[in-house]
Amino acid sequence: MDLAHRLERLGTETAFAVAQAAAAWTAKGNRVYPFHLGDINIPTAPHIIEAMNAAIADGKTGYCPGAGIPPLREALAEDIGSRRGTSVDPGSIVVMTGGKPVITKFLQTVMNPGQEVLYPNPGFPIYESQIEYLGGTGLPYRYVPTEDGFAIDLDQVRSLITPNTVAIIYNDLQNPISAESTAAEREAIAALAQEHDLWVLSDEAYFEMRYEGESTSITTIPGMAERTVILYTFSKKFAMTGSRLGCAVAPPEVASIFATLNTNDESCTTHYVQWAGIEALRGTQQPVFDMLDILRERRDETCRLVNEIPGMQVAVPKSTFYVFPDVTGAMQRMGFATVGEFAEQALYNTGMSFCTRQHFGRRQPGEERDYIRLAYSGIDLADIQEGLGRLKDWVASA
Amino acid sequence: MDLAHRLERLGTETAFAVAQAAAAWTAKGNRVYPFHLGDINIPTAPHIIEAMNAAIADGKTGYCPGAGIPPLREALAEDIGSRRGTSVDPGSIVVMTGGKPVITKFLQTVMNPGQEVLYPNPGFPIYESQIEYLGGTGLPYRYVPTEDGFAIDLDQVRSLITPNTVAIIYNDLQNPISAESTAAEREAIAALAQEHDLWVLSDEAYFEMRYEGESTSITTIPGMAERTVILYTFSKKFAMTGSRLGCAVAPPEVASIFATLNTNDESCTTHYVQWAGIEALRGTQQPVFDMLDILRERRDETCRLVNEIPGMQVAVPKSTFYVFPDVTGAMQRMGFATVGEFAEQALYNTGMSFCTRQHFGRRQPGEERDYIRLAYSGIDLADIQEGLGRLKDWVASA
Repeated sequence: MDLAHRLERLGTETAFAVAQAAAAWTAKGNRVYPFHLGDINIPTAPHIIEAMNAAIADGKTGYCPGAGIPPLREALAEDIGSRRGTSVDPGSIVVMTGGKPVITKFLQTVMNPGQEVLYPNPGFPIYESQIEYLGGTGLPYRYVPTEDGFAIDLDQVRSLITPNTVAIIYNDLQNPISAESTAAEREAIAALAQEHDLWVLSDEAYFEMRYEGESTSITTIPGMAERTVILYTFSKKFAMTGSRLGCAVAPPEVASIFATLNTNDESCTTHYVQWAGIEALRGTQQPVFDMLDILRERRDETCRLVNEIPGMQVAVPKSTFYVFPDVTGAMQRMGFATVGEFAEQALYNTGMSFCTRQHFGRRQPGEERDYIRLAYSGIDLADIQEGLGRLKDWVASA
Repeated sequence: MDLAHRLERLGTETAFAVAQAAAAWTAKGNRVYPFHLGDINIPTAPHIIEAMNAAIADGKTGYCPGAGIPPLREALAEDIGSRRGTSVDPGSIVVMTGGKPVITKFLQTVMNPGQEVLYPNPGFPIYESQIEYLGGTGLPYRYVPTEDGFAIDLDQVRSLITPNTVAIIYNDLQNPISAESTAAEREAIAALAQEHDLWVLSDEAYFEMRYEGESTSITTIPGMAERTVILYTFSKKFAMTGSRLGCAVAPPEVASIFATLNTNDESCTTHYVQWAGIEALRGTQQPVFDMLDILRERRDETCRLVNEIPGMQVAVPKSTFYVFPDVTGAMQRMGFATVGEFAEQALYNTGMSFCTRQHFGRRQPGEERDYIRLAYSGIDLADIQEGLGRLKDWVASA
């Protein structure tokens, strides 16, 4: 009775360890400021819950199609298409239990064991975990700091591609670093994908989580929609992280495979939650605007206070609900050799709980600066002020 | 841009094609009697929905642990343990999006590519699909008709096992044939598992869907709990098929892997649905008894009417909501060479829609009788009577 060898390659989100440490510290009677969670402390809007209950009352409690209920697929096609300025066919939509399943189902569909997939590092840790778990080789590509954020190291991306590379995972509006491509960078990624005949997973989880300007999908570049799978989620925009509702937008052949994978893996996504999703898309968007107003205020305050801390600096990102400050100076000032040690002591000395660069992939060669990730989606303004104030006092006193 | 080779081995539930044919025939203005669905046309009980809404009002709309929320794991451990006469630790419970994910996660955890897994045939088609998809070799084992149902061909099971066999999937209270092991049969399976050091997936989806007697879990046999994963689901017992809520009961090391797989695959099961699950387990059980009364009446009428049809016979099963009549005589009488053709013409001539033996695996060598599966969970008594009456007239008139 052995366990399967593939498990030796399975990774996870190590950020959960941060949540556990925070919970343990709280349980000992300490005040904790939770900047570690990519979750949202804002309730799902009532009209969405009402639509779910109306569906239950209407008998939508049985199985439904593996690809999702047709009216939700239609609503998603219309909404996703119109917000990207493209035409999306409902047949290309496959509803999923959140955005995350799109990652493993994409990789299962386009990557054989032994093949290579490019992925962002720092980046969402499940990319690397699933590439390796499914027997592939992950090729991490890096970002370089710019005046107002980060840019993909395109030269490195080019240098990594081999004839054995089959796909690139592209997360414009990036978690954890809140990078956003310029048009030129997005076009360069598209050109590389076409030149090397790569599949693209465009993780657009934060496409509408932005405070100014407009998002652009790589699928709007000619030749890209037919090689790209979009990861879409209701989690962030509609404060529905716990509802587990998302979808893939995929070329027809891939969409059909995804539907069969759904039938194999979980039959379907919770039926009545799909009806809630229709209301989220088609009903009033006021709660989305209200939430973005709240998050904008938190973002501004977080960035302002971080930049007041000696040895920390961050640019103000236009999207997502993360900031990724450079803390190299603060660490040096305090004598910390690793950012993990800095984070651990910050929790015990100030109650500030956050993830670090280490939670988003292995450090790359030549990487000299240290970063932490502050998520401001799960913490109120007053606590942001209090927590970052305590962090400032701790760093300043060193 | 090729697709991955593993997709060539991916199967599915072909029963969905039956649902599509029935829908198309209905759309043409015909009356259809839906015996093809393993779904339930009884609503989820109101107190369960109320608990879900109370959880939403209490803010349970964010992420929760990949293994499930602790109070649900505790409620499941208590309920599953007490109904099986065993002690179940909450740490061995991993909540899933239904029972189905337990199949793929079990196989991912215990089977390497090239290894063999025994599975029932006829049986739930996803067993074979996932064994082959994950690179294993499925070893189908058969059932033989007995006076009051079906028995596993234990000699065949023995003959199939090789040193390369790592697991057996065991579905006591069986879909589609409603077989139930005698104590001796269950002990023989357990003895084989121990002798050959096999993992066991005990699919107990219908454990409490029974009309008389008591179910017994193979995990109660000494030495079995440590090698067995139980598949548990809320779908049938609580009429919650569309809610997608289930769990695995697994040895600690396996449970820990399942939790990590959940974190990779979908983060967590819908948060507020888990609170509904607690109420389903701990609240009044009257709706369960009421549903079983309804299903018992349907079962009795279905069996009575089937046995009135020339060339059809079926024993009355004590559990599940399926009957699996032998239709060999009816087919011969009418001149049908294949059961698929029989089913197709039955739809067009009588409106009776049902799956056949072919939807539950490849016919095995030496298999001479033909069977159909009638699911009575999704059709009311009056329609059972009308549909089977029309089927009887059609067969009798030949």
